[in-house]
Amino acid sequence: MNLDNDILLAHRLAEAAGQAIRRYFRTAVETERKGDATPVSLADRAAEEEMRRILSAEVPRDGIVGEEFGSEAGSSGRTWVLDPIDGTTAFLAGRPIFGTLIALLMDGWPVLGVIDQPILGERWTGASGRQTLFNGKPAQTRRCRELASATLATTGPHYFDEHDGGHFMALAARTDHKRMVMGGDCYNYAMLASGHVDLVCEAGLKLHDWAALVPVVEGAGGTMSDWSGEPLHAESDGHVLALGDPARLEDVVEALACHH
Amino acid sequence: MNLDNDILLAHRLAEAAGQAIRRYFRTAVETERKGDATPVSLADRAAEEEMRRILSAEVPRDGIVGEEFGSEAGSSGRTWVLDPIDGTTAFLAGRPIFGTLIALLMDGWPVLGVIDQPILGERWTGASGRQTLFNGKPAQTRRCRELASATLATTGPHYFDEHDGGHFMALAARTDHKRMVMGGDCYNYAMLASGHVDLVCEAGLKLHDWAALVPVVEGAGGTMSDWSGEPLHAESDGHVLALGDPARLEDVVEALACHH
Repeated sequence: MNLDNDILLAHRLAEAAGQAIRRYFRTAVETERKGDATPVSLADRAAEEEMRRILSAEVPRDGIVGEEFGSEAGSSGRTWVLDPIDGTTAFLAGRPIFGTLIALLMDGWPVLGVIDQPILGERWTGASGRQTLFNGKPAQTRRCRELASATLATTGPHYFDEHDGGHFMALAARTDHKRMVMGGDCYNYAMLASGHVDLVCEAGLKLHDWAALVPVVEGAGGTMSDWSGEPLHAESDGHVLALGDPARLEDVVEALACHH
Repeated sequence: MNLDNDILLAHRLAEAAGQAIRRYFRTAVETERKGDATPVSLADRAAEEEMRRILSAEVPRDGIVGEEFGSEAGSSGRTWVLDPIDGTTAFLAGRPIFGTLIALLMDGWPVLGVIDQPILGERWTGASGRQTLFNGKPAQTRRCRELASATLATTGPHYFDEHDGGHFMALAARTDHKRMVMGGDCYNYAMLASGHVDLVCEAGLKLHDWAALVPVVEGAGGTMSDWSGEPLHAESDGHVLALGDPARLEDVVEALACHH
């Protein structure tokens, strides 16, 4: 599988999305919102339109799944999955730790993923069988010898329902609770790929939220799965785990099976 | 009260701290921690030492309260309050949304505050009777016509005890819950000063966590208080509110008085 051209194409998509997004970041100064036309939805749409335009021109036989404009079937067995702004609340709150997510799926499995932070100029690129790169340099997860010393990240407890929240709390209680970080969306997975966070646990994610993360995390030495430890695929139910050190997977799944 | 020289001095402190901090950011790749010598504690100490060195040379009669090295009494009625890295977990997790906090107190009241983000090169400067500046340009909070449309930020629910958490949840339920953001530490107050967030609510803050925030938020048109709506002073109990729109203070205090 030669992904060289696809990686170059994914980078072109990220650059086009970033240009669109930078025009809107921190332009909101009113709490009043007219219909749905918030700066984030304008940026989201503009970025996805740019990416779809490039894909239609360059790889017209590939399918597209986008957060904003839905699905277009392809005939090549390849599908691009786009989330122009993952972390819309972070974007609206002025935090430069949201990201543009770009994934390429083959037969439902993510083989290429990009996490791009267009304000900071940070980009993680992962592809099957390759070392993940952060701005062109190798990114590597860190070892985690025991769950009790793990730094856990999640976007917020308000994204769990009561049932999932109880399981999350059971896991959190087994980690280094003092160092747990909230907020962050896709940026948490990027930090895990670069060896600054050990564990991310979330629920309710859609395909476009997680597809790009898998090649990035796994190409950096980590692993991703659902809450049972099973590999993520296009039909997964949105319960997502990322571990910097795959050796801790059994401990994490066991801790999550409890309920706090 | 002429604070011109103090503002210049505070900026010198921020630059010295930033130089020290940038040497350590994202240098940790091991979960194992030897004693207390994590990169964040090394950065914290180096930054505070640099700031204390400058203060001792320039304003030897002023007192100093620092997060890392305690208090030195002064004889001028003026006290510098330093938090070299507010948001140590964010720093450790590789997120560039921690901050260096520098405040000048006169008779226990903060009259000058700086929030500095040394990785992104972002600095908010507030001083009594002046417009807050963000990188030299005016910063202004936004209006918030009703609590139900307010974006609320807090660093994490795990920083509240059970009692405070219940009151926080009662407030959160009255805001635009979908847009609530977690994580962020002092960066939330900076974003409030720049008009991207409406409300920050936290508990357990120490003087060095909040003193610098007051002139920044109030000079941008907002207000800060304890959870009863009373002004913050050196003896406050660590329950902190920041509002972009002071007109909502009564609603917020009323909502917080309930328990969820």
